[in-house]
Amino acid sequence: MPKKTAGGSGKPPRAPRAARAPAPIQPATAETIATRQKNISVSEFFAKNRHLLGFDSPSRALLTTIKEAVDNSLDACEEAQILPDLLVELQKIGEERYRVAVQDNGPGVVRSQVPRIFGQLLYGSKFHVLKQSRGQQGIGISAAGMYGYLTTGQPMIVTTRTSGRQPAHRVTLTIDTGKNTATVHKDEECEVDWPHGTRVEIELIGTYKKGQHSVDSFLEQVAIANPHVRIELRTPEDPQPIVHERISRELPATPREILPHPHGVELGVLIKMLKDSRARNLKSFLVNEFSRVTSNVANQILAGTENGCKPLPPTARPATVSHRDSERLHRAISQTRILAPPTNCVSPIGAELLEKALRSNLKPDFLVSVTRSPAVYRGNPFQIEAGLAYGGDLPAEEPATLYRFANRVPLQYQQSACAMTKAVVTTPWRNYELQQPRGAVPIGPVAIVIHIASVWVPFTSESKKAVAHYDEILREMRLALMEVGRQLAIHLRRRRRQEDAERKRSYIEKYIPQIGIALQELLKFDDAARQKTEQCLEQVLEKSRKL
Amino acid sequence: MPKKTAGGSGKPPRAPRAARAPAPIQPATAETIATRQKNISVSEFFAKNRHLLGFDSPSRALLTTIKEAVDNSLDACEEAQILPDLLVELQKIGEERYRVAVQDNGPGVVRSQVPRIFGQLLYGSKFHVLKQSRGQQGIGISAAGMYGYLTTGQPMIVTTRTSGRQPAHRVTLTIDTGKNTATVHKDEECEVDWPHGTRVEIELIGTYKKGQHSVDSFLEQVAIANPHVRIELRTPEDPQPIVHERISRELPATPREILPHPHGVELGVLIKMLKDSRARNLKSFLVNEFSRVTSNVANQILAGTENGCKPLPPTARPATVSHRDSERLHRAISQTRILAPPTNCVSPIGAELLEKALRSNLKPDFLVSVTRSPAVYRGNPFQIEAGLAYGGDLPAEEPATLYRFANRVPLQYQQSACAMTKAVVTTPWRNYELQQPRGAVPIGPVAIVIHIASVWVPFTSESKKAVAHYDEILREMRLALMEVGRQLAIHLRRRRRQEDAERKRSYIEKYIPQIGIALQELLKFDDAARQKTEQCLEQVLEKSRKL
Repeated sequence: MPKKTAGGSGKPPRAPRAARAPAPIQPATAETIATRQKNISVSEFFAKNRHLLGFDSPSRALLTTIKEAVDNSLDACEEAQILPDLLVELQKIGEERYRVAVQDNGPGVVRSQVPRIFGQLLYGSKFHVLKQSRGQQGIGISAAGMYGYLTTGQPMIVTTRTSGRQPAHRVTLTIDTGKNTATVHKDEECEVDWPHGTRVEIELIGTYKKGQHSVDSFLEQVAIANPHVRIELRTPEDPQPIVHERISRELPATPREILPHPHGVELGVLIKMLKDSRARNLKSFLVNEFSRVTSNVANQILAGTENGCKPLPPTARPATVSHRDSERLHRAISQTRILAPPTNCVSPIGAELLEKALRSNLKPDFLVSVTRSPAVYRGNPFQIEAGLAYGGDLPAEEPATLYRFANRVPLQYQQSACAMTKAVVTTPWRNYELQQPRGAVPIGPVAIVIHIASVWVPFTSESKKAVAHYDEILREMRLALMEVGRQLAIHLRRRRRQEDAERKRSYIEKYIPQIGIALQELLKFDDAARQKTEQCLEQVLEKSRKL
Repeated sequence: MPKKTAGGSGKPPRAPRAARAPAPIQPATAETIATRQKNISVSEFFAKNRHLLGFDSPSRALLTTIKEAVDNSLDACEEAQILPDLLVELQKIGEERYRVAVQDNGPGVVRSQVPRIFGQLLYGSKFHVLKQSRGQQGIGISAAGMYGYLTTGQPMIVTTRTSGRQPAHRVTLTIDTGKNTATVHKDEECEVDWPHGTRVEIELIGTYKKGQHSVDSFLEQVAIANPHVRIELRTPEDPQPIVHERISRELPATPREILPHPHGVELGVLIKMLKDSRARNLKSFLVNEFSRVTSNVANQILAGTENGCKPLPPTARPATVSHRDSERLHRAISQTRILAPPTNCVSPIGAELLEKALRSNLKPDFLVSVTRSPAVYRGNPFQIEAGLAYGGDLPAEEPATLYRFANRVPLQYQQSACAMTKAVVTTPWRNYELQQPRGAVPIGPVAIVIHIASVWVPFTSESKKAVAHYDEILREMRLALMEVGRQLAIHLRRRRRQEDAERKRSYIEKYIPQIGIALQELLKFDDAARQKTEQCLEQVLEKSRKL
């Protein structure tokens, strides 16, 4: 990071070096401090704070780069309703230096948009829309390109084609971090052998490892949560590509865009919406700019009869509503019963698929999953799914394994900071026949999956590796876990009863013949009488055992 | 959040509502996606992602608001070398609604700067400078004002005065989130009874609670790490103000600004520095724009003899250096031995003060602290301090209590996500005579303090509540902890030896008189002979005990 001068006037002067000039430091004044104030570009901010985006170590940087490209590819393919076909290529070109390429068969990117989408932070199509998608911030892929350039000095290359009738374009670009804009170095037409799609190439300092936090494991989990995707991974270490074939040819239900729900809108936001609105009157403002506000509900809100507030004039122009009336409107909204937001804006994985994924991966003895009804935090609909696998090959004496997904994207890092972990830790597993140390995940042959699908997943940082602790979200997660927990308890108790029964049965089987022989000797039975007595005894005992 | 339309053309049209129009969704094309792409303002981004800034619940929001204002006040006072005198006022004005005021005796803010400093995210004096300070991002206080406005619709009021000869100014402002600029509603001169300083007032949805994560506990810890500060807190619950008087009238050493260290500069950054440099030649570029590069070191880097690289021409103009030569220069720098960065840019709390704070707060039996030498991560100097208190009133069977500080600011939340916690958990406390469950903090009557002082603390999120897991930082923390751990072990072993010795001594004292009596009876000693024999025996046993 180049040092900027106190004067802030562009180039640094040749100042005496700090270490050599230990003269006393003059106290600052309001005026001297004022001369040092300046704008910080969002790229500079994230270049310095790159760990916020997941670029804090070479191995994370490689994974994050691939994750961001894959998220974008899958979102684009699904928006265009194309079955995704991804190619991820890793080429080692030096000590800790890789060239990453991610290619999809998506709709491609219009040429004029390439520099902004790939070379500017905070630019994208998903931020301003309430709809479930993997990307949401307009930061990820541009940040990966920026990291690549900062660490290797090499630009990012984007090749994209929107249709077989059009030529492909290859754009070579870098980010100007001081201005947060793209610098295009080359922009040329080129030949490719695919009709549509996008290929992103980034050279970066990174390390490629196998294991829990690896690219391999990430793509494996992507395939679990996205069975409609085919992924091919080519690495320097595997002579053959690693291929995850698609299991299903059906695209997930396309999530719909929704309007904000009135109960999630804060006073300040409501005031802004009123100011910006083109609606003719308050009633049509409410009906047209919010979800779940019917004409009836709008009348209730404005009449104030149901909610105990003073009535508001339905014909008032939204832009002229006073601050006081805005507050009254806000209170009236919060006190009126309104239907929960529509649920077709989120697209869960589904219980069937969750169980299938768990079964094929873990081969457990017992499997249960649950998809909760959608709920709302701060006006954003979300839906929680949980699955639990027990027994089989799972290690009996270890803490439970936790698989976390958000909008079908696996979360591999920052488990301890995630609301999902908190939900698992605060679920009373002892009630469900599992051991659980205080403040820890349960112990036993257990794997737990949690998925949150939402129009806006609140992550704890821009790197999107852990979900923030919103009370509403935690509650839904705990309810889902308690539901699978209860099912597990029923299973384990039934199994224990069966085992007890088995044990008693084996006693019976072991001792009755001995009793038979004893009776035969004492009472001089013949063999037939002995057998009959034994059968009789068995029946009596079996009956009493069942009670 | 107002919903934006697909067309992106400003105002939303009166679209049919999603819930009522479940017509099939048309596949997107590159062209339709392109029309939806748009800029995201950094204020919109953080308004939606407010949990990143610490505004995810009413109680955190209140604490974060006060924390940001206090951080700014302390930084300003110290820059102006004024002993800080802070007043924090909390006024309850409704259910979950507070008016917060934080007032300091700092240098004040120049009037023209008020709108940008308090009403624009990513604007400030500390981001572009390598110097230890509490604030660094230019986000905090503006975000607090934005949160206040979003939740209550009330603007922020800033009253500031730069000198007794000038009138004070009172500016009433809000953030326009769509543009990330301040809207000034009122700007007036006013009378105040203080000569210089700043008072910030924000109305917000928040909750005020006592306890571990409270405002009270935050200010208490601020006072511990900043003994030169006087803080007065007025709350709705306490009839008398809570006052932390200053313990010391000495300001901490003013941290100096430094140039970047060559070993922390990445290739991409080096290329940008070369391009932007006004230095006449490579040698003066190296000497003048980096810390710790003497003429001699610059010669070594360029000659390439020490580092096994090809020599570079010292007279080349930096701006014309080719990409290939930049890479060579970068490699040469990394392979040349260069002195660690100067340490006067960081200002640790100091062992004496750390121990004083621990002693007065915890009254332990044993106390140790350590201030490590400064180290470097990604070119940023940092320094770790650790302290450990044992025994006294600390609970014996509980996990150790951890106090975390970064640049003298207490970190109260997100303990599990913090590198400090990781460092504690991965330190082998069993070697130091403490119990430690696997993957957990040690158990015992122990309190641990860690402080990181740095020109740039890498936080895990913008809310600055946990330190990111950089390897270099983790290593220093662990080394500091191992040092205090070893001291603790020495203390505990000595104590155990003393206890053993005590026990043996008590045996001796108990049994020798009995032996004396027995001998007296057997051998018919007189009392003098018995006493002499007893003394003799004691000496012999005492001698053998010491061996």
